[in-house]
Amino acid sequence: MTLETNWNQIYEDAKGWIREAGEEIIASFTTSFAIDTKSNPNDLVTDIDKETEKFFIERIKKIYPSHRIMGEEGFGDQVEDLSGVIWFLDPIDGTMNFVHQQTNFAISIGIYEDGVGKAAFIYDVTKDELYHCSKGTGLYLNNEKLKPLEPVKLSESLLAINATWVTENHRIDPRTFSPLLKKIRGTRSYGSAAIEMAYVAAGRLDGYVSLRLAPWDFAAGKLLIEEAGGVCTTVDNKPINLLDKNTIFVGNETFHSQVQKDYIQPALDQNYYLKTPSTK
Amino acid sequence: MTLETNWNQIYEDAKGWIREAGEEIIASFTTSFAIDTKSNPNDLVTDIDKETEKFFIERIKKIYPSHRIMGEEGFGDQVEDLSGVIWFLDPIDGTMNFVHQQTNFAISIGIYEDGVGKAAFIYDVTKDELYHCSKGTGLYLNNEKLKPLEPVKLSESLLAINATWVTENHRIDPRTFSPLLKKIRGTRSYGSAAIEMAYVAAGRLDGYVSLRLAPWDFAAGKLLIEEAGGVCTTVDNKPINLLDKNTIFVGNETFHSQVQKDYIQPALDQNYYLKTPSTK
Repeated sequence: MTLETNWNQIYEDAKGWIREAGEEIIASFTTSFAIDTKSNPNDLVTDIDKETEKFFIERIKKIYPSHRIMGEEGFGDQVEDLSGVIWFLDPIDGTMNFVHQQTNFAISIGIYEDGVGKAAFIYDVTKDELYHCSKGTGLYLNNEKLKPLEPVKLSESLLAINATWVTENHRIDPRTFSPLLKKIRGTRSYGSAAIEMAYVAAGRLDGYVSLRLAPWDFAAGKLLIEEAGGVCTTVDNKPINLLDKNTIFVGNETFHSQVQKDYIQPALDQNYYLKTPSTK
Repeated sequence: MTLETNWNQIYEDAKGWIREAGEEIIASFTTSFAIDTKSNPNDLVTDIDKETEKFFIERIKKIYPSHRIMGEEGFGDQVEDLSGVIWFLDPIDGTMNFVHQQTNFAISIGIYEDGVGKAAFIYDVTKDELYHCSKGTGLYLNNEKLKPLEPVKLSESLLAINATWVTENHRIDPRTFSPLLKKIRGTRSYGSAAIEMAYVAAGRLDGYVSLRLAPWDFAAGKLLIEEAGGVCTTVDNKPINLLDKNTIFVGNETFHSQVQKDYIQPALDQNYYLKTPSTK
């Protein structure tokens, strides 16, 4: 084992850097920050996003020069295959919340080796909640080990879904999920895929749907959820592609299988489900 | 001025009791709690809800015996008019979150005298965020004075609305708000009316819609939002009735007036808006 694959060390380094970055982000609230828009007016990015991504890249490249980084802000590597160690990094997941609220955003880091998840971290910065796992050793929230997910009844479950996906939109026929809303206990929408996936892993939510996520959005959440015993697929029940944008449907195992069988598959059978392919 | 109308003292007492109750609620997480259901299977109540309501009632009745209390769990008074001092108390707003998540719930207290708001408190317990105001002195988040709300563009605004209200439901035609979702920056749903109203007051959200709230759900939020310069009405733009259940539409002033004019009024004009009256 070389330093580059010393997973205990990588785990401790990542945890330390995340908490350090979180402190710097909170300190930034006392100064003003600049906001740019990216491809569309609602795709916001701040200089704090960019600085935080650079903060991680400098440290990773210095200590682990062979590792590659796939980051939202584009300062990392052009990653086109899954060989070796890859850090999937979203320095601020939930940028819209960051801009409007200065809360309800997270740092998300998933570390994979040859396509296999090794370690994952989602840090809800202002709440000081760090969800983390090393593959096979269980899920932690800060220093507390969480219990694996247990079966849930559909009638007692909570689903994170944005209201957009049950009204007219460009990605999915609203008839896919709207009937489900009558059967479950409630819906939530927090505006951060990382926090929503961490909540599924922790059993705070039973499922989460999104129609457009990039690898840095879901890489950490996928491993956390699988470590807790949950299931992660595309909305049309295919494996998630770590190299591309995906639709995402994750959940507690019983919730996931029942929703696939009773809501999504019937929508697929009636041919009114997806307006775009599951990966594009 | 008697003790019973010494508003500085009432304010300090309420703040102190709220923080004390919050500590007791967090301590309860280490023990198990019993869950009952009320009128329907999704209307949850725990013994912590009941104990917290009793905690406040004991203290209020001891120090301010002439004050009346309208509380969610029913241990307070039968309040049928607005004379004198009334505490509108929700010991745990967001009980479903409390049960499923042990986070994202709030203590909500609004204190009115002869129907006029005097003091309001919403405490997001696990986040340790206490929003509070005494009428006319501005809004505070913990010890920080918040700025009054400023005009927002519809295209840059965030609305809290549950997905239920834009799909088939028993209370409102989904065509009322679904066109709005295409025009704004995004929607959120946190599952606690108190937190959602506190966020509107603080400018973290620009509006919030709910179709079924009771006085203890909105009394504190209404005063906080008005203190910040925002507007609170029923969905069909009538004054809120503090003695009954109401539909609720609150927001930043520019957001509220534009949504009333361009979305709600046209829905009313086409006669497809409300399936139930605004108060019932």
